[in-house]
Amino acid sequence: MSKKNITILCNVHYHQVDQMGVMHHSQYVYALEQSRIEWLLNQGISYGNLEKKGILLPVVDIAIQYKKPLHFEDSYLVHATLNELNGYYVDFSYVIENQQKNCIATATTRLVFVDGQSRRAMKCPDFLQNAFHSE
Amino acid sequence: MSKKNITILCNVHYHQVDQMGVMHHSQYVYALEQSRIEWLLNQGISYGNLEKKGILLPVVDIAIQYKKPLHFEDSYLVHATLNELNGYYVDFSYVIENQQKNCIATATTRLVFVDGQSRRAMKCPDFLQNAFHSE
Amino acid sequence: MSKKNITILCNVHYHQVDQMGVMHHSQYVYALEQSRIEWLLNQGISYGNLEKKGILLPVVDIAIQYKKPLHFEDSYLVHATLNELNGYYVDFSYVIENQQKNCIATATTRLVFVDGQSRRAMKCPDFLQNAFHSE
Amino acid sequence: MSKKNITILCNVHYHQVDQMGVMHHSQYVYALEQSRIEWLLNQGISYGNLEKKGILLPVVDIAIQYKKPLHFEDSYLVHATLNELNGYYVDFSYVIENQQKNCIATATTRLVFVDGQSRRAMKCPDFLQNAFHSE
Repeated sequence: MSKKNITILCNVHYHQVDQMGVMHHSQYVYALEQSRIEWLLNQGISYGNLEKKGILLPVVDIAIQYKKPLHFEDSYLVHATLNELNGYYVDFSYVIENQQKNCIATATTRLVFVDGQSRRAMKCPDFLQNAFHSE
Repeated sequence: MSKKNITILCNVHYHQVDQMGVMHHSQYVYALEQSRIEWLLNQGISYGNLEKKGILLPVVDIAIQYKKPLHFEDSYLVHATLNELNGYYVDFSYVIENQQKNCIATATTRLVFVDGQSRRAMKCPDFLQNAFHSE
Repeated sequence: MSKKNITILCNVHYHQVDQMGVMHHSQYVYALEQSRIEWLLNQGISYGNLEKKGILLPVVDIAIQYKKPLHFEDSYLVHATLNELNGYYVDFSYVIENQQKNCIATATTRLVFVDGQSRRAMKCPDFLQNAFHSE
Repeated sequence: MSKKNITILCNVHYHQVDQMGVMHHSQYVYALEQSRIEWLLNQGISYGNLEKKGILLPVVDIAIQYKKPLHFEDSYLVHATLNELNGYYVDFSYVIENQQKNCIATATTRLVFVDGQSRRAMKCPDFLQNAFHSE
């Protein structure tokens, strides 16, 4: 049974914190990526296997709105939601919360389907469409 | 004589490239940051000194649109432009080009002014307003 | 009850893998750091709190021997062991294993005690000596 | 005319600095890598092309001794020297200096030759031996 939402728990590591004492804004990009990969796994899809089959899902659009800082040793939750899937792209939206349930950041990403051989855009393969829509 | 635009030249380093063989999308965030810091230096402002004076400029919004990939050993240009400065935030826009003058990515960021002691939003200090508007 | 060893479980994230398709050798440095921080927590010491008290533990020596590669979606274990603690430094050694119990890498680090105000070397504070030696 | 030494100039970027206010110890690994790649280029060898030909040079050993910290906006020099090349590995040593010519760190690395297809150790190809020894 697949579903449109997933939540992952992350920790702020020492090397992610800058000299302002907060998690550097670049590091959220990694957390979003990790949540998407977990989302796919939750549909039964290993992103590593997708790439081995020659299907790449590069990010073509990312937008992040930072609301509150995170500090070293903080934990945070990334909630990832599938917003739209059509033949050409997949859109996710994200809410990041700290342990006190304050909203830390919101974000959106768009991924496209790319053929690993030709490196050209391709339509979303049927088996992925099915996996994404099977709830 | 200050100006609204700056261009920096960057190289794709080995560790920035992922297993798709392209510069990972997170790495653009670092290039944008570097171009902003160079933009400030070009107005006579060291961001390091700003922080020592207790003025922080965290990113509150970032959006990147990826058009074409970059590969290991590619060079690229980041063109950064001041779009808007008011009492509360600074907006930059960016165009990233490869050496063949193809557009690789576009981006925007919003920074706010934060008091290093209280960690609260503050108005843009006058000396910064002047530096930004002195062209 | 404190102890000299700790084991943490980590995953290879997409952004950590280079174009050879293996976890980039820099990324092991982060895993070692994380294991040390967990080791300290296991003695009841938050490294974040240590820094707030003005006690810094910078790395002055690191050596890593890479035996086998790790790939995207692999899990691995970092075993960290306190080797020596004296008034001036702390030495840890590490073994990294994959899920099949193959040795992936070995490593050693030396940390020193630095006063956060003066930024000069200091002797290991007594409460840390006690925490480290309390098993 | 090739030579055994190269020096590259690097800058400490904002995102490389941790909450101690110094360049994080992991970041030196990237600077060493960059100097090796420049060293190869200086012998007329693009590491990117080597990989395309199926010759990989993974790091199997790294050791770094940190002497003094680097701060945001510091520049530093990485001096890389070929120490030994035989049929099975290449050893480099490094000295990192700040702009005041103080020694910041020293380091050594060992790289081996790996066949990109089989992913097994291979002997150093003749054309590389020649390039390395042509001074």
